[in-house]
Amino acid sequence: MDATESAGMLAVTLERGTVRVERSPLPQRRPGHALLRMRLAGICSTDLHLQRGYYGFSGRPGHEFVAEVVECDQSQWLGKRVVGEINLACRQCDWCARRLGRHCPNRTVLGIVKHPGAFAEYLTLPEENLHEAPAQLSDEELVFTEPVAAACEILEQVRIPDAAPVAVLGDGKLGLLIAQVLQLSGARVHVYGRHAHKMQLLSPLGIAYQVIGEVPPQVAYDFVVDATGSSAGLQHAVAITRPRGTLILKSTVHDRVVLDTAPVIVNELTLVGSRCGRFEPALELLASRRLILRPLIHDVFPLAQAQRAFERAAEKGVLKVLLKN
Amino acid sequence: MDATESAGMLAVTLERGTVRVERSPLPQRRPGHALLRMRLAGICSTDLHLQRGYYGFSGRPGHEFVAEVVECDQSQWLGKRVVGEINLACRQCDWCARRLGRHCPNRTVLGIVKHPGAFAEYLTLPEENLHEAPAQLSDEELVFTEPVAAACEILEQVRIPDAAPVAVLGDGKLGLLIAQVLQLSGARVHVYGRHAHKMQLLSPLGIAYQVIGEVPPQVAYDFVVDATGSSAGLQHAVAITRPRGTLILKSTVHDRVVLDTAPVIVNELTLVGSRCGRFEPALELLASRRLILRPLIHDVFPLAQAQRAFERAAEKGVLKVLLKN
Repeated sequence: MDATESAGMLAVTLERGTVRVERSPLPQRRPGHALLRMRLAGICSTDLHLQRGYYGFSGRPGHEFVAEVVECDQSQWLGKRVVGEINLACRQCDWCARRLGRHCPNRTVLGIVKHPGAFAEYLTLPEENLHEAPAQLSDEELVFTEPVAAACEILEQVRIPDAAPVAVLGDGKLGLLIAQVLQLSGARVHVYGRHAHKMQLLSPLGIAYQVIGEVPPQVAYDFVVDATGSSAGLQHAVAITRPRGTLILKSTVHDRVVLDTAPVIVNELTLVGSRCGRFEPALELLASRRLILRPLIHDVFPLAQAQRAFERAAEKGVLKVLLKN
Repeated sequence: MDATESAGMLAVTLERGTVRVERSPLPQRRPGHALLRMRLAGICSTDLHLQRGYYGFSGRPGHEFVAEVVECDQSQWLGKRVVGEINLACRQCDWCARRLGRHCPNRTVLGIVKHPGAFAEYLTLPEENLHEAPAQLSDEELVFTEPVAAACEILEQVRIPDAAPVAVLGDGKLGLLIAQVLQLSGARVHVYGRHAHKMQLLSPLGIAYQVIGEVPPQVAYDFVVDATGSSAGLQHAVAITRPRGTLILKSTVHDRVVLDTAPVIVNELTLVGSRCGRFEPALELLASRRLILRPLIHDVFPLAQAQRAFERAAEKGVLKVLLKN
């Protein structure tokens, strides 16, 4: 560690739209936190939004990662390959007491809110956030733990009856994971998106799809997930949700979205905002090896080429781009 | 009836912003429908929106009324004082089979969608839509049946625990009824609005209130009802709903509302659109005589003066305005 410390480490900084890779000091490990050496990290749509300055962000992004523990307080973690939950809760408020630390009002969030992220050689996280990686899973599978957990969160919030038809709008990275998680949970998923070549990746799971254009498809569902990230997508989602139906908002929508509330009220829709999820169900699902993940990886770059990786991730039609350490 | 038929009847027509009262033919009574003589009718915010051409409406408005039956198929209704549900369902589709005729896709709606309304000497409704008026209730109480039913609808959609604090945003006609219905159901209601003189009408029921301005109050609730009818109001409502909380959309919002979905997603809010309700619970509540209704009536006009009545109803700070036949 001494050599590393003196030389610092490679780390990504986002600032005013630019992606810089530079040598930085190692992150300070606080008591109860572990120092982790990043092995593989994923670029998510949120990272692309952070690059564009969403929430005035500048700093070190990255919240999807696989790492190994190089320093820690509890010795059983040492050397372990881990994934980690991204919300750093205060552990003292009512939310934390209710095991909902991901809504803790005092929380910081890895790579998003006031905690340096995983796009670096090293990062820190509280030991209580860590989950040991199942040995049979590759880094390329484990790096999907966080977005799969976000997809699983839907099942924690909404009860979808067995074999119920569900529409997933949006064929981006998150949409394709949501479609799989819901299909494997017993729903009958139909994906609506712009890119047949992405959606057909899910055909082995029996997931149907339809390419759509500017007008909403003439269909109606009791359960709809909006993962489009666009105002137009949300309007389509509202339009295809049946009266008294449930529409799950799963986009990382960072712009103000114009929502006409009249159809929501007239049709008495229930809209459910959905964000991060617990890692346990995600790791269980990953361990089942039933998810289609490898075809979603479109590129892998060494950390030093993070700028190119961000450019690639922002290309139209490109799915997951990874950073390797 | 012969004299009336030959002379036609007085009826209100809305067209391109104007309110006209003119002699019109009596409405045709179809089989299974009753011909009703209107006794008292209420002007609702929706009527004011219809006047402004919402949904390109032109025609005869009015959906809050008390009437008496002058012609019908089932003789037991003859001469009865009645109120009536406003959705005319097809009785043949799946929605109707599930007793959710108010979501029937083929429905017409009294005074709103393709069925002439109650702002006339006579109207028609299917006999199955009628409810006999409890004898002890005055017309001035019964005319609130429809909006009270709309308020009661919330309790059918959302389970609010006993004594739970609930914020109602908006001190218009509907907001004040919602506040009462929820308070009487066991919640602890706090109304936030612009007009102390309106909100203090509810003090006898122990309903707290606070006058608010342009910024949301610094409060947080697990249950919030938006009855403001404005984009700004909805933003406030989102801002004061706790993570994982429930926000009930109860406005008749006819303009496009700009909703920033980010806080809905980040805080995993549940938004529930809520519209019309069944009349049974409303009539039960009215019969309990616990609702504060008389002080909400700000004016009564004869039908012939409907134009003045609409003007009065549109004045700032004015609550319910009635039309008497």
